[in-house]
Amino acid sequence: MVEKNTGAGLRGQSAGQTAICTVGAEGNSLRYRGYDVVELAEQSTFYEVAHLILHGELPTAAELEAFRARVDGHRDLPPALREVLERIPASAHPMDVLRTGCSFLGNIEPEGDFSRQMDVAERLLAALPSMVVYWYRYSHDGVRADTDTGEDTIGGHFLHMLHGTAPGDLERRVMDVSLILYAEHEFNASTFTARVCASTLSDLHSCITAAIGSLRGPLHGGANEAAMDMIEQYASEEEAVADVLRKLEAKELIMGFGHAVYRLRDPRNAIIKEWSRKLAELKDDPLLFAVSDAVERTMKERKNMFANADFFHASAYHYMGIPTKLFTPIFVMSRVTGWAAHCFEQRANNRIIRPGADYVGPDDRSYVPIGDR
Amino acid sequence: MVEKNTGAGLRGQSAGQTAICTVGAEGNSLRYRGYDVVELAEQSTFYEVAHLILHGELPTAAELEAFRARVDGHRDLPPALREVLERIPASAHPMDVLRTGCSFLGNIEPEGDFSRQMDVAERLLAALPSMVVYWYRYSHDGVRADTDTGEDTIGGHFLHMLHGTAPGDLERRVMDVSLILYAEHEFNASTFTARVCASTLSDLHSCITAAIGSLRGPLHGGANEAAMDMIEQYASEEEAVADVLRKLEAKELIMGFGHAVYRLRDPRNAIIKEWSRKLAELKDDPLLFAVSDAVERTMKERKNMFANADFFHASAYHYMGIPTKLFTPIFVMSRVTGWAAHCFEQRANNRIIRPGADYVGPDDRSYVPIGDR
Repeated sequence: MVEKNTGAGLRGQSAGQTAICTVGAEGNSLRYRGYDVVELAEQSTFYEVAHLILHGELPTAAELEAFRARVDGHRDLPPALREVLERIPASAHPMDVLRTGCSFLGNIEPEGDFSRQMDVAERLLAALPSMVVYWYRYSHDGVRADTDTGEDTIGGHFLHMLHGTAPGDLERRVMDVSLILYAEHEFNASTFTARVCASTLSDLHSCITAAIGSLRGPLHGGANEAAMDMIEQYASEEEAVADVLRKLEAKELIMGFGHAVYRLRDPRNAIIKEWSRKLAELKDDPLLFAVSDAVERTMKERKNMFANADFFHASAYHYMGIPTKLFTPIFVMSRVTGWAAHCFEQRANNRIIRPGADYVGPDDRSYVPIGDR
Repeated sequence: MVEKNTGAGLRGQSAGQTAICTVGAEGNSLRYRGYDVVELAEQSTFYEVAHLILHGELPTAAELEAFRARVDGHRDLPPALREVLERIPASAHPMDVLRTGCSFLGNIEPEGDFSRQMDVAERLLAALPSMVVYWYRYSHDGVRADTDTGEDTIGGHFLHMLHGTAPGDLERRVMDVSLILYAEHEFNASTFTARVCASTLSDLHSCITAAIGSLRGPLHGGANEAAMDMIEQYASEEEAVADVLRKLEAKELIMGFGHAVYRLRDPRNAIIKEWSRKLAELKDDPLLFAVSDAVERTMKERKNMFANADFFHASAYHYMGIPTKLFTPIFVMSRVTGWAAHCFEQRANNRIIRPGADYVGPDDRSYVPIGDR
């Protein structure tokens, strides 16, 4: 007998155990393997956090250097992969480019067996930023960007490859913090997609490819892009406030506010907001931050809704010269750590994920030959 | 509060509603939109069944011809896709080839918006067989196979393109029946993967790509390939029976028997078994069928276990000259109808699928600077 579902979308139902993350305990916390994301974002680096998520513990100095050296050494793209990326038009959705790139990497560098799962995860962590920037610069600028940037962070590598010049220290740090904030979020839809795929004991490229496709959906990734589309329209704080009030009146959705799991606030917001403020100062370009701040205040005052992690990411990324369409791929560059860790966890204690369904279709029908229909 | 899961893998839990299929009612039935798969396999064609699953009703003669014309007209592969397929080595897993091919088709022929969902489904239904055979023949034989076969069934097209010659009427019909039997199976793991992906409102190529990656896992697709690997070892019925008894004694798994949902029997088995018998007669090559029959009898007598749909598919496909590694891709050629229909259904009444989890990881921990670890 199939138990009735208590709510659509499996909301409030447990789909399994995890030791990787807690989201929204006390209404406002996010912890990776027991560590508060606020502490991690203040004191650690993304390579430390990636190691924590993938390997279960924060690295020692020696472990960190070994991990960084392995990942940094995996940034190159094989010629066949570059040729595939060059065949994807500029009009393609960058998330779909990563989906194909990840899948194709699995064709030419297959996992083989699960003993290689960590190698594959580290390879993807290194190669996904190279892939999306290689495609972007080739399709948009006709440039075959060099993957050999010499940068020692993933965010720095991304910015360097994208702009063709070394980023500043502030940009490097903001990217690193951003990747920390997006690294893991329990059984969200893309991670759950990866786990369902992993539960058939499929290969890691299949699981990550599936997760990319799921994050691509506008109900999941993409909120920071939608926030950018909104805030870049405003020439002043006053204009922003007036338009937000008009949207609220018209019951239009305002992206980047509220959250399915956090009840009180999204702990990641204050962190990225502060970095966005610093970028505005550095660039001597206060408007976008001021507009964002005004929108946040208005949403709090009028609807008691808080900004989530995505909202101030929009201005932060924009200040770093990142095209809006590449915002969600940055999410992938970070979340691949959480996805891979969940696949490892699913594999280690697996049962195939095969729920039941409530049938609401036609009763038994008899076949009618085509001439009699 | 997250409700505790009653069993691993969401077994016995409903994850939503569906009007497409019932599996295992009375322990042994399979119905597509109310029609018994046994009647459909006896009296209808795969194009009728694909129409039933995708459009909800069996077609009239005029609807059937229009549907067939649309699908048959979509078999060609764009040059860029052929160039991508040519870059995938012969050693690749054919399921991974379809995963990349489907994803890349989404790069060059994107869905755009959901009003085009049926076009995309029909395009994939037509193009997936062409993709896997094009890659197979190029990578294995150095031949750029022609997608223009003039065949008026999907199974006939597949065989014709694979062998370079027109198949016989019996082969055409067996392929057609096989595609009917594999078309749909409720919330199995690959279909559920597609629905989780669809629930973020992602595009159809992402959903189908994800499902292919999930079906690739050895706990899901691939049982017919494993059955083939076993039965082709035996030179006689006696040898088969002796080896099966030895395997049972050693508690080894025997693929192609039993089922997670059917309790009494798999209704698809008797159908494909009869077609396998006819192929053995036509080919005047009784061994593989006789061996399969002996294994089935032994499993029934000793373990009271029934053969599932996969078991006699192995011999049937083999009699048609299909390489074992292409067995699971045939499953994709058929199941893409069910996957697409489930995505349409999810989109039509959507809530993002985001379950909870039981946390079993470390308690709250404080960050320790790297020098102090």
